[in-house]
Amino acid sequence: MSGAGGGEHRSGFTPAGADFAARAHASFERQRFMAALGCRLARVEPGEAEVEVPCRDDLTQQHGYVHAGVVATIADTACGIAALTLMPAGAAVLSVEFKLNLLAPAAGERLLARGRVLRPGRTLTVCTGEVVALEGERETLVASMLATMMAVRGRPGLAG
Amino acid sequence: MSGAGGGEHRSGFTPAGADFAARAHASFERQRFMAALGCRLARVEPGEAEVEVPCRDDLTQQHGYVHAGVVATIADTACGIAALTLMPAGAAVLSVEFKLNLLAPAAGERLLARGRVLRPGRTLTVCTGEVVALEGERETLVASMLATMMAVRGRPGLAG
Amino acid sequence: MSGAGGGEHRSGFTPAGADFAARAHASFERQRFMAALGCRLARVEPGEAEVEVPCRDDLTQQHGYVHAGVVATIADTACGIAALTLMPAGAAVLSVEFKLNLLAPAAGERLLARGRVLRPGRTLTVCTGEVVALEGERETLVASMLATMMAVRGRPGLAG
Amino acid sequence: MSGAGGGEHRSGFTPAGADFAARAHASFERQRFMAALGCRLARVEPGEAEVEVPCRDDLTQQHGYVHAGVVATIADTACGIAALTLMPAGAAVLSVEFKLNLLAPAAGERLLARGRVLRPGRTLTVCTGEVVALEGERETLVASMLATMMAVRGRPGLAG
Repeated sequence: MSGAGGGEHRSGFTPAGADFAARAHASFERQRFMAALGCRLARVEPGEAEVEVPCRDDLTQQHGYVHAGVVATIADTACGIAALTLMPAGAAVLSVEFKLNLLAPAAGERLLARGRVLRPGRTLTVCTGEVVALEGERETLVASMLATMMAVRGRPGLAG
Repeated sequence: MSGAGGGEHRSGFTPAGADFAARAHASFERQRFMAALGCRLARVEPGEAEVEVPCRDDLTQQHGYVHAGVVATIADTACGIAALTLMPAGAAVLSVEFKLNLLAPAAGERLLARGRVLRPGRTLTVCTGEVVALEGERETLVASMLATMMAVRGRPGLAG
Repeated sequence: MSGAGGGEHRSGFTPAGADFAARAHASFERQRFMAALGCRLARVEPGEAEVEVPCRDDLTQQHGYVHAGVVATIADTACGIAALTLMPAGAAVLSVEFKLNLLAPAAGERLLARGRVLRPGRTLTVCTGEVVALEGERETLVASMLATMMAVRGRPGLAG
Repeated sequence: MSGAGGGEHRSGFTPAGADFAARAHASFERQRFMAALGCRLARVEPGEAEVEVPCRDDLTQQHGYVHAGVVATIADTACGIAALTLMPAGAAVLSVEFKLNLLAPAAGERLLARGRVLRPGRTLTVCTGEVVALEGERETLVASMLATMMAVRGRPGLAG
């Protein structure tokens, strides 16, 4: 993480201020649903974020796989945090919409969602997400997301 | 199709057998994530289903609203159950993909997702879903879903 | 059409000014692709629009049905015009994103797309669209759309 | 799988038979809408396809950019052809659904859609597409697609 916050990162994006990672973690930690699922913000870079969840039994659907709603949750959160890293301090990120394709049963030790900004914008930021299932060394692609995030400014009490 | 379960219902759809509601409830109850969120299968008709969740604090995102992932979860489940009611016994329903638009902050006493089959098919069933927030008598539309569900047959151990 | 432009219409929406229909038609007529496909703006109400296209041979895909791209085109245009009717004069409407489910082969005498505003907003307007195939008296649902439109203001030369 | 067409290609996918490119071109050429728009199947590899269209005046929307429906058309076609290359001879490809995000105004000399299989399947194949605008040496990303394609078998007269 660059001390200055300026300049281009490995991800190819310039973060909106040196504190982008701190703001990302603060936003993640305010999301009580993340704690309820046992999620962890595994990585933050400018325009990128990774969210991990263990494949706990209480997160499953009727066939024993992790519920599509959990898959959507971590992909949406990873995309939202990825978008937030490129927004100025004080801006809040809201999900406008997302589409998720389920590609394989979500099963393994844990799921990892990778969110990445495809096109940043002043108001709207478009992101892609992928969710992989991890089992030992093996990684299986289980879902793909295409999402639109919105920056909301100037609403006191609404940030992150 | 059984004599009792046949015929057209108010919903305009003909269920796949008299036991459609029993199969729907059984599928719902096997979804451990539903119990974890405090969800209830509030209504089942041929081609329609409603899933309700209380707006608990542990389901919120960073601004105190219910997380978009929870909204997606109940909409996806309602659509899946709606599709299942039109599938023959022994068929399992899987989510192929869904798209969700978030229309208003998800806040209130509870959220209700209404899933409805738009076009049933032997393999693919397309559904629409809406999620409303309920607060006393007031109902606010908070999200809209368009989803594709798939019937999987002939896999022993995979049903509902 | 109300002379005053104010007040609520049958559609349940209040148009943004008495000239909403004139602005809608002007926007439609500036779309040269509409003329190329032989499209017609069949109906405009506040928050609603219908676009029709004949099932010409030159609009078909490899199996002789109308191409999914044509179906998407008329649904997107109907949604965009529906959104435009609720935007103030001078605002331009842009498609942010849309999702289309193809439900049945697009064949008949003509296709009709019905766009409707689901939730209007100052910046973003969410719309639903459906496309039906018309053959004599018969109407078949061939596609469903869920779309996000954006109002762009204050760009000279960009309106409608 | 034929000796000539078998084996893994650069794209990482194994085509369904040596004639995958011939079948792709035949399918493309039967799409009369492609000719009407002036489209060209610029490239075919196993699991990949590129479709190009010139930015003709008659393809524009109300602000002079290429219509989102044209962007959707070439992205959908590129994804469909990409999916077809991995399907056995005799199978027909149908678009189940797609979602398109518009990222920048579609303007330039021509547009190029790149379709790529994300996950092939016996019945459903999930693809991603991107559309870029080309102007001299410059390439601008204008749209992103996530699409579901379906293989239809055993319908006489329906192939490609």
